[in-house]
Amino acid sequence: MPPTLADLGHRAKQAARVLAGTRTSVKDGALLLAADLLEQRVDDVLGANAEDVGRAEQTKATPAQLDRLRLDAGRVAAMADGLRQVAAQPDPVGQVIEGWERPNGLRILRVRVPLGVVGIIYENRPNVTSDAAGLCLKSGNATMLRGSSSALVSNRAVVALLRQALAKSGLPEDAVVLVEDTSHPAAVEFMGLQGIVDCLIPRGGPSLLDTVRRHATVPTILDGDGNCHVYVDAAADLDMALRIVVNAKTQRPGVCNAAESLLVHRQVAEAFLPRLDQAMAQVELLGDPAVRALVPRAEPVTDEDFATEFLALKLSVAVVDDLQGAVDHIARFGSGHSEAIVTNDLTAAERFCRDVDAAAVLVNASTRFVDGGEFGLGAEIGISTQKLHARGPMGLRELTCVKHIVHGEGQTR
Amino acid sequence: MPPTLADLGHRAKQAARVLAGTRTSVKDGALLLAADLLEQRVDDVLGANAEDVGRAEQTKATPAQLDRLRLDAGRVAAMADGLRQVAAQPDPVGQVIEGWERPNGLRILRVRVPLGVVGIIYENRPNVTSDAAGLCLKSGNATMLRGSSSALVSNRAVVALLRQALAKSGLPEDAVVLVEDTSHPAAVEFMGLQGIVDCLIPRGGPSLLDTVRRHATVPTILDGDGNCHVYVDAAADLDMALRIVVNAKTQRPGVCNAAESLLVHRQVAEAFLPRLDQAMAQVELLGDPAVRALVPRAEPVTDEDFATEFLALKLSVAVVDDLQGAVDHIARFGSGHSEAIVTNDLTAAERFCRDVDAAAVLVNASTRFVDGGEFGLGAEIGISTQKLHARGPMGLRELTCVKHIVHGEGQTR
Repeated sequence: MPPTLADLGHRAKQAARVLAGTRTSVKDGALLLAADLLEQRVDDVLGANAEDVGRAEQTKATPAQLDRLRLDAGRVAAMADGLRQVAAQPDPVGQVIEGWERPNGLRILRVRVPLGVVGIIYENRPNVTSDAAGLCLKSGNATMLRGSSSALVSNRAVVALLRQALAKSGLPEDAVVLVEDTSHPAAVEFMGLQGIVDCLIPRGGPSLLDTVRRHATVPTILDGDGNCHVYVDAAADLDMALRIVVNAKTQRPGVCNAAESLLVHRQVAEAFLPRLDQAMAQVELLGDPAVRALVPRAEPVTDEDFATEFLALKLSVAVVDDLQGAVDHIARFGSGHSEAIVTNDLTAAERFCRDVDAAAVLVNASTRFVDGGEFGLGAEIGISTQKLHARGPMGLRELTCVKHIVHGEGQTR
Repeated sequence: MPPTLADLGHRAKQAARVLAGTRTSVKDGALLLAADLLEQRVDDVLGANAEDVGRAEQTKATPAQLDRLRLDAGRVAAMADGLRQVAAQPDPVGQVIEGWERPNGLRILRVRVPLGVVGIIYENRPNVTSDAAGLCLKSGNATMLRGSSSALVSNRAVVALLRQALAKSGLPEDAVVLVEDTSHPAAVEFMGLQGIVDCLIPRGGPSLLDTVRRHATVPTILDGDGNCHVYVDAAADLDMALRIVVNAKTQRPGVCNAAESLLVHRQVAEAFLPRLDQAMAQVELLGDPAVRALVPRAEPVTDEDFATEFLALKLSVAVVDDLQGAVDHIARFGSGHSEAIVTNDLTAAERFCRDVDAAAVLVNASTRFVDGGEFGLGAEIGISTQKLHARGPMGLRELTCVKHIVHGEGQTR
């Protein structure tokens, strides 16, 4: 009989207690060993993956789904490299954030400690299995992984190697557990494992996020949509603006920090939009009447378009009367991810940075830089668009919490 | 027709956009004015409160409930003082937490910004109305207050004065709104105001917390139970241990940082427990067989007792074989609030601090110190026992989040 979800959770919880007191060198050793095992046993992993891919092909999976599911030697090598990079990053656990002494002599430290058990619910990319488990292990957390049924055989193979590396390093295997029951009721049960799951991170589309919002009773961090804007101000360098808009939209359109919407100040619309039209011949444009007057090929845009994260070579465009118009548009349609202004006007830059409410606001730079690696923070487990705990790229540090350590000599109140 | 909850929320959201860019001096001015108004209009507030108290008396409220509900001139003065103290605290908004430059020249700042709209659901203490709104205003947040029906008339009177102070300070009145529909369906609707409520903080008992866990789809911070332990180690100074246990249990038994459970190392049980028995004559003791052999008046203790936050002059007591026994007991029964060890053994102190998973661990000090004021952090909106965002006393800083501000000169990827 397979273990119940609660059994798995209790095992992970016990493992988390051990990990919380494990030295960095031991955790790093396990990560490097897991990387080696992935490369040595690549054939086992690819064999398992072939089963998943074969099953998916029979069930009319789309080419995009198949691509996300499929592993090859290069992708497995990238998974191994990911683990090595995480091993090379500094360990946030034990870091003293602040410390002070009170008038009564009490000494207080705020110290980073692991969260405990981190639950990850994700869709069909098997590389998330090792990426997420690696980040959690480095930050001293046990991981409960709940992938999709389509990737179950692949995930089982990867998790088996990770657990082998843990055991060989003298760490509890249950620091990484795979939830094999991929049914909806089991997912809902998982989201309700209070006292076991200290933090649940869903990685997937809007319907997964919605399920988590509705059913989770454990604390969650949501990696939300990126409906990102670039605003070209009246005082913009239009050459720079063009480079930034083209980069933000086209360099990798399928990711959350790609731009989905362009706002152009009325004063520069006539000079800028025809150049945009030319530079973005491969991009479908949707525009308001002022845009369409200057770019005849643009289709009419709706509020729904303005609210949509296209994740494709498609851009909604609006002309705004002024900076306030841009700020208001972003407040209405933005998802709080990454918002850029292109301007040489100091006041405009400062007002935009102050008045736009997002994880990141950028002045004269592409939204594509909002990323853990580009920020210099190392590998990320996602980009949070919520405000609590983590906002923006979530790396190792966001997988920790604080503990207050108070030293006295018998003080009482 | 009264405004719908969504209307109120949209008004608060608009107000929050203004507050986010409001200077500290203006926010402080509004807080001081609100304090003055509370004192000048104390008769209005007490008159309103008398209505609530009269109604509660007719509906068989308990003496404790009536005490929590009742205001008098002293309590109103304390509310005013609370606002003045918050005005005197440093403003966390605008604080640059970190800043760095990337190899490509991008400059990144992490800056504290308000959360936006903070929802507070609370039970019948009308002073929470001004305390919570004051902390939220200082930290640049709009507040949606949803008190209990029993305190509705009092809350209306207090909110009217707060809004008057806002308006006189040139700030939007809707920075503080009162949700007057205190029905359960309205509470559930409130917990689901996605896109409006940026953070919901319930202040109340276990059933309120449970409702929030089950129904909230907006981000929450839970101010949980405090099932706090004191562990008297083999190497404890027993005089100090006695002072700490008596203080932690009896100085104010009804609060969350009071001790509920005592763990005593077997080696010192015989020397310590009879002294405890004498020193705690006014406290009801529940003990395991080893305790009862030394303290005959102790009643038998159950696992349920060990899991209970008594909030009364009642203490569960267990003898443990060693430090690990204490750590395991706390892992099983603790609520992650505040846990203390009394010891002169350095290794024991370090292991306890490392292995006990709680918002605060204390060495040779009373659990009663785990409090925003005692920590020197100023007024608190609660003590978080969750791990995400805030853990331990939650003050102004915990009512903010971060924004990344990125400056470039046209960088693209």
